[in-house]
Amino acid sequence: MKNALITGGTSGIGLGIARYFASHGYNLLINGLERNGTETAHDMATEHGVKVYFSGANLMQPAQIREMVQQAEKALGQVDVLVNNAGIQHVAPVDEFPEEKWDSILAVNLSSSFHTSKAVWKGMKERGFGRIINIASAHALRASEYKAAYVAAKHGIAGLTKVLALEGAPFNITCNAICPGYVRTPLVEAQIADQAKAHQMTEAEVIEKVMLKKQPVKQFVDVCAIAQMALLLASPASSQLTGTMMPIDGGWSAQ
Amino acid sequence: MKNALITGGTSGIGLGIARYFASHGYNLLINGLERNGTETAHDMATEHGVKVYFSGANLMQPAQIREMVQQAEKALGQVDVLVNNAGIQHVAPVDEFPEEKWDSILAVNLSSSFHTSKAVWKGMKERGFGRIINIASAHALRASEYKAAYVAAKHGIAGLTKVLALEGAPFNITCNAICPGYVRTPLVEAQIADQAKAHQMTEAEVIEKVMLKKQPVKQFVDVCAIAQMALLLASPASSQLTGTMMPIDGGWSAQ
Amino acid sequence: MKNALITGGTSGIGLGIARYFASHGYNLLINGLERNGTETAHDMATEHGVKVYFSGANLMQPAQIREMVQQAEKALGQVDVLVNNAGIQHVAPVDEFPEEKWDSILAVNLSSSFHTSKAVWKGMKERGFGRIINIASAHALRASEYKAAYVAAKHGIAGLTKVLALEGAPFNITCNAICPGYVRTPLVEAQIADQAKAHQMTEAEVIEKVMLKKQPVKQFVDVCAIAQMALLLASPASSQLTGTMMPIDGGWSAQ
Amino acid sequence: MKNALITGGTSGIGLGIARYFASHGYNLLINGLERNGTETAHDMATEHGVKVYFSGANLMQPAQIREMVQQAEKALGQVDVLVNNAGIQHVAPVDEFPEEKWDSILAVNLSSSFHTSKAVWKGMKERGFGRIINIASAHALRASEYKAAYVAAKHGIAGLTKVLALEGAPFNITCNAICPGYVRTPLVEAQIADQAKAHQMTEAEVIEKVMLKKQPVKQFVDVCAIAQMALLLASPASSQLTGTMMPIDGGWSAQ
Repeated sequence: MKNALITGGTSGIGLGIARYFASHGYNLLINGLERNGTETAHDMATEHGVKVYFSGANLMQPAQIREMVQQAEKALGQVDVLVNNAGIQHVAPVDEFPEEKWDSILAVNLSSSFHTSKAVWKGMKERGFGRIINIASAHALRASEYKAAYVAAKHGIAGLTKVLALEGAPFNITCNAICPGYVRTPLVEAQIADQAKAHQMTEAEVIEKVMLKKQPVKQFVDVCAIAQMALLLASPASSQLTGTMMPIDGGWSAQ
Repeated sequence: MKNALITGGTSGIGLGIARYFASHGYNLLINGLERNGTETAHDMATEHGVKVYFSGANLMQPAQIREMVQQAEKALGQVDVLVNNAGIQHVAPVDEFPEEKWDSILAVNLSSSFHTSKAVWKGMKERGFGRIINIASAHALRASEYKAAYVAAKHGIAGLTKVLALEGAPFNITCNAICPGYVRTPLVEAQIADQAKAHQMTEAEVIEKVMLKKQPVKQFVDVCAIAQMALLLASPASSQLTGTMMPIDGGWSAQ
Repeated sequence: MKNALITGGTSGIGLGIARYFASHGYNLLINGLERNGTETAHDMATEHGVKVYFSGANLMQPAQIREMVQQAEKALGQVDVLVNNAGIQHVAPVDEFPEEKWDSILAVNLSSSFHTSKAVWKGMKERGFGRIINIASAHALRASEYKAAYVAAKHGIAGLTKVLALEGAPFNITCNAICPGYVRTPLVEAQIADQAKAHQMTEAEVIEKVMLKKQPVKQFVDVCAIAQMALLLASPASSQLTGTMMPIDGGWSAQ
Repeated sequence: MKNALITGGTSGIGLGIARYFASHGYNLLINGLERNGTETAHDMATEHGVKVYFSGANLMQPAQIREMVQQAEKALGQVDVLVNNAGIQHVAPVDEFPEEKWDSILAVNLSSSFHTSKAVWKGMKERGFGRIINIASAHALRASEYKAAYVAAKHGIAGLTKVLALEGAPFNITCNAICPGYVRTPLVEAQIADQAKAHQMTEAEVIEKVMLKKQPVKQFVDVCAIAQMALLLASPASSQLTGTMMPIDGGWSAQ
């Protein structure tokens, strides 16, 4: 029960989850668009003494998703845990929001999770065990301006999560969504520096007043907290924990 | 402020809303795939003494959506109220759910509302008035088995509704979603008769035990109740009523 | 079906609802602690040509609540619509929050609605018609600092609302909660003026930046919008509309 | 950071949490009305090599709650983690619901958590660390018939949880609620046997069709799953995880 497929697993939150799972003895297939994916997988395998495979599948292509799952089932023997983590973003007012961005965000942030879940379902059902963990967002529960596609897709994931939970109930397949607030990724790091210059604020001020405006706990969400929750959800012991949205958002959704 | 565009307005819930709005003095453009759309529009106009136009635009085609909005703006002068009502359904377990059904349900039930909203936005912003009303579903808040695409799309509409509410706030554009439970449409009527035969139950039993299993009030939701709520949301007086999900579901979501 | 009992009906939101219901032909019993309650009732009756009675019952006393409901049933013949509107507030950090304030806020904002609902229930059940409308708050759904008792009590009302909806379902008794954001009452008016002086801001700035910080639509909620929704909920046509939280909060809960 | 006060910790869910925390090195004060509380505490201490104290405080008495917290602070040195778990239930239709049951359920299931939280707050604030974990219920999010007081109190706890999360944000005090579905406690065991006789069903049928009607995963929630989540929430690493409702309910709230 320790074979996991993690999309977007070569950087940011997904990489953090992958490392944490590897350190707890999971064999992995990590997917991502990073060029050094094979190397990342190799290093992780060496460090933690587990098997780690890489797939460069483009999640906008259902056929590539199916191939990726087949690759994972072949390499790992089976996929016990599926972490749908890959995501993209575009920010624009609705009247200027490019239609191709709407389509690509829905494809990656929502539809790809349907395709991966559908592909792993048969095996999970046969074995009577499956854990599907969607890395959604506080935006699966709340909205922000200028993020029409992202918020719609993430709310959509919340809906898909609940359906899969109900359909999986007789087969010990659970499905949950973790809903993080803002996380400090390399991309965000760069934005902080830029905005500090632009607003003539210190970096600490940018974080507190601009980036974390909506989070009462004035710290970025730690990737480790997300990984810990994902590991808990992946556990065989979590069989009655299903169909939930788990916010880790510094109090954002409480207010 | 009494010009409305209603998608899926030639049958079912949309037709009920159209008639109710017409009876309250709204000029309309109704959209639908019914062959007798022009006739429906003509009859409604005659009965209620308002203008009613028809568009047969296919909501899976963004270009046709844009044309439809242009047609509405030209015919009505402006679109003050947009009712995104059109929807389709497909029921299947996730591992058998056809990918083309996933795509078409997302296109009609979710993406089309983005395209219509985007197209009417500029005019609403300029005039400082707009009311966007999404006819979602109890499935925008809760899940049922075998409806992966429908539930995901309807949850997605909830997300889009909230984003548009926030972006529209400075311009007196509101956006809300009505979330009905099961409504007695002609399609449903036929299902009741069929199931009564299949299960050897009376039609009343089928309604109570099969169709309305999830609704504590053992009656179908009346289209009129939906239309009344839509009219309230469309009112200029409802300017602070925005970003909400309004269930009319016989208590479904309370339990 | 046009006899309503409205608590806290002699001032603020409750008075607005009372007037609106009176103008739509409802006979009323209004309750409140204002000294001029009898006069208010008399004036309302004269203006709208309906019967309006007054009760000065203290809602912290269950025995007085029972008497008030008996008075209403005797004077009006029956109570078809119950509007639980009375509420009090106290603002303090949790470690300084007075225990007697906790108790009184729970008594008035939560327990009194249990007592009134229990008292009207038998009659509603016998007649097969009842509409219970709780004027809750955005704080029935979201929290703010320093309002431990108010937020707990208002969330509690959300729970009670759902239970009553389920228990009322077989008897055509519905129960819903309206969840307003900030409303401009006389009390609030005075605060605006004070804060403008204190912060050296214009009154418009105080409203936008201080009072309505959480409401994207930068206007107070109009009592009339609340009254319109209450009237809709009170309607016989709203029989499937039950167990819901209806925010009218300028987009607060969407973000 | 490993000193916890657990109310209702001498039986059922609370006892399970206490044992799990003890086995992870926490020193404890457990509270309960069981006569053998001192013995339970002693046995737990011996088994796990930690300190375990007992308090028989009656949670309906705020003065006894304050004494209990003082006892805990003195015995343990400090209270880092507060688990508000004690709860009582009464089931009756609203028109027959005894007022004294309403009052006692609100006192134990809601107000006691205010009193305990208020009492530990100062110390947590001074030390810059606190974890408050409320064992709520699926009934903090959804209703069932005949449980007016329980559902109102548990929804109230949801509100209190969010307020404490916001007020605690600057001080590294988090507050969350775990929302379990039905758990197999000794009390429930007995009910299963009784109902099996009464309905002439097997015990397995009673569990599936009667007791777990609302839970798609047809198993009781395991106390261990609740304890694991509580331990995660108690962790210093969970500093951004606050203000949330965490259902462990077999999919109940997803549908």
